[in-house]
Amino acid sequence: MSNITAPTQFLEVNNERYAYRRFGKGHGRPLLFLQHFTGTLDNWDPAVTDPLASEREVLLFNNAGLGRSSGQVPTTIAGMAKHALAFLDGLGLTSCDVLGFSLGGMVAQQIAQDRPSVFRRMILVGTAPRGGEDIMHLEKPSLAKHFKDPALHGYEILKKLFFAPTDSSQAAGEAFIQRLAQRKEDLDPVSGPEVAAAQIAAFRDWERFTGEHFAELKRIPHPTLVVNGIHDEMIPVSNSYRLVENLPNAVLLAYPDSGHGSLFQFHESFVRQATAFLASDSQFAPF
Amino acid sequence: MSNITAPTQFLEVNNERYAYRRFGKGHGRPLLFLQHFTGTLDNWDPAVTDPLASEREVLLFNNAGLGRSSGQVPTTIAGMAKHALAFLDGLGLTSCDVLGFSLGGMVAQQIAQDRPSVFRRMILVGTAPRGGEDIMHLEKPSLAKHFKDPALHGYEILKKLFFAPTDSSQAAGEAFIQRLAQRKEDLDPVSGPEVAAAQIAAFRDWERFTGEHFAELKRIPHPTLVVNGIHDEMIPVSNSYRLVENLPNAVLLAYPDSGHGSLFQFHESFVRQATAFLASDSQFAPF
Repeated sequence: MSNITAPTQFLEVNNERYAYRRFGKGHGRPLLFLQHFTGTLDNWDPAVTDPLASEREVLLFNNAGLGRSSGQVPTTIAGMAKHALAFLDGLGLTSCDVLGFSLGGMVAQQIAQDRPSVFRRMILVGTAPRGGEDIMHLEKPSLAKHFKDPALHGYEILKKLFFAPTDSSQAAGEAFIQRLAQRKEDLDPVSGPEVAAAQIAAFRDWERFTGEHFAELKRIPHPTLVVNGIHDEMIPVSNSYRLVENLPNAVLLAYPDSGHGSLFQFHESFVRQATAFLASDSQFAPF
Repeated sequence: MSNITAPTQFLEVNNERYAYRRFGKGHGRPLLFLQHFTGTLDNWDPAVTDPLASEREVLLFNNAGLGRSSGQVPTTIAGMAKHALAFLDGLGLTSCDVLGFSLGGMVAQQIAQDRPSVFRRMILVGTAPRGGEDIMHLEKPSLAKHFKDPALHGYEILKKLFFAPTDSSQAAGEAFIQRLAQRKEDLDPVSGPEVAAAQIAAFRDWERFTGEHFAELKRIPHPTLVVNGIHDEMIPVSNSYRLVENLPNAVLLAYPDSGHGSLFQFHESFVRQATAFLASDSQFAPF
């Protein structure tokens, strides 16, 4: 089973209808995938989802207002966490592992605080703590230039945003786009500007903090693997440094020659590391 | 074969006599161990050396003036690199992998610049680039308090310096000391204050830089694994951040709840990660 072919399913909970895909099997805890800015079910790289699905069920989830999920896109991370928990409750899933990428990593952190028991182990990729710096400022020149480039369309923009400006990283980006394009049917609608605006509002809110900086991270005891590309322009790697400096039980894995999409660029390494991390039942993160 | 029992050997080169231990076998490239501040052959944890020796020869090396090696301790990293190269030349070893810990990681970086061909893959643990910050300032209060504590002697000081001030890290430190104490014969003399003074001078020199900060790292293309404990007080983890931000081909692995001796605290994880890294023959560091 693959994210190239897995059918989209729908779950009705609390007057919302959530779109998701569920595939794979094995002895591992189910793994919930929480998606990046404007991403839908179709943005999950089969090179990452499929091998992870060989040892466990994977659950790809569209939060409210994304793809074919109903409802409004929340303008706070806390609002998104509520929908994700409603989804898990609707499935009757009381414990899982989580892979939160970018925006999804923030939602994972929020859930870990709101209901710690739901996650066993967490993988946080290309994300930031509350009070993090330079989170998804698409207006800054290094990112805005790609949106303004008339030669770039659709996934070509994603290749510039998610990969580093080197031949090797851009080649990995091209391969990533080709993998996403393998899914031909049962596709989500592409997110529009209203989705982007609500999620950007959530990022701006997430940058704000009160009280002691990063104090809430010290209360997230879950074994955690933090992953980042060193040259991430969307959410700089310094945010991952702050995560592992303040989470009491987190390992950092940082990849060279890569940007926001390091997990897709180095999918073989990422899957190997994530598999080893998830296979551990230790109370400690190191694996 | 183990560093608990491996006989100390001696190699005469250029009027110097270098003490070393060589054990293990397998298909891997030989792995050169470059030691930390004041450390001798007896300071290498068998929990790290021995499993790595199951797939390759390991070479533990006392630089000039350390343990039973002859000569003066150089007051620059470049001077130490010259001795290490003379040692490899004396053995007739033209290519190996290297594990440089702390001071040893600086020597490894220097060798990688002076003679790039000698290393295939590099592991740099708890170390800093030239121009790094807060390198081994034993006079700062967080470190000086351990030296001034009349209740602490010998390895008890090492436990405070190398491990984080948590129960779990200190317990790992105690286990580390017990492992080192298993070697009962053929021991190196403990380093005296003249060794420390010369090595401290080398650290102070290594903190200085001219020209563009970290520019020389961009010319070290070797696949590199950088490892650090998040709470390292001797050489702060920010130095490892600077390494992977400027080395073009380096993966960072950072461990929670640990200090300078993270590789000894999480020896099972470290050996597993180092083994996977060294098993790769890719031109890229990710593994």
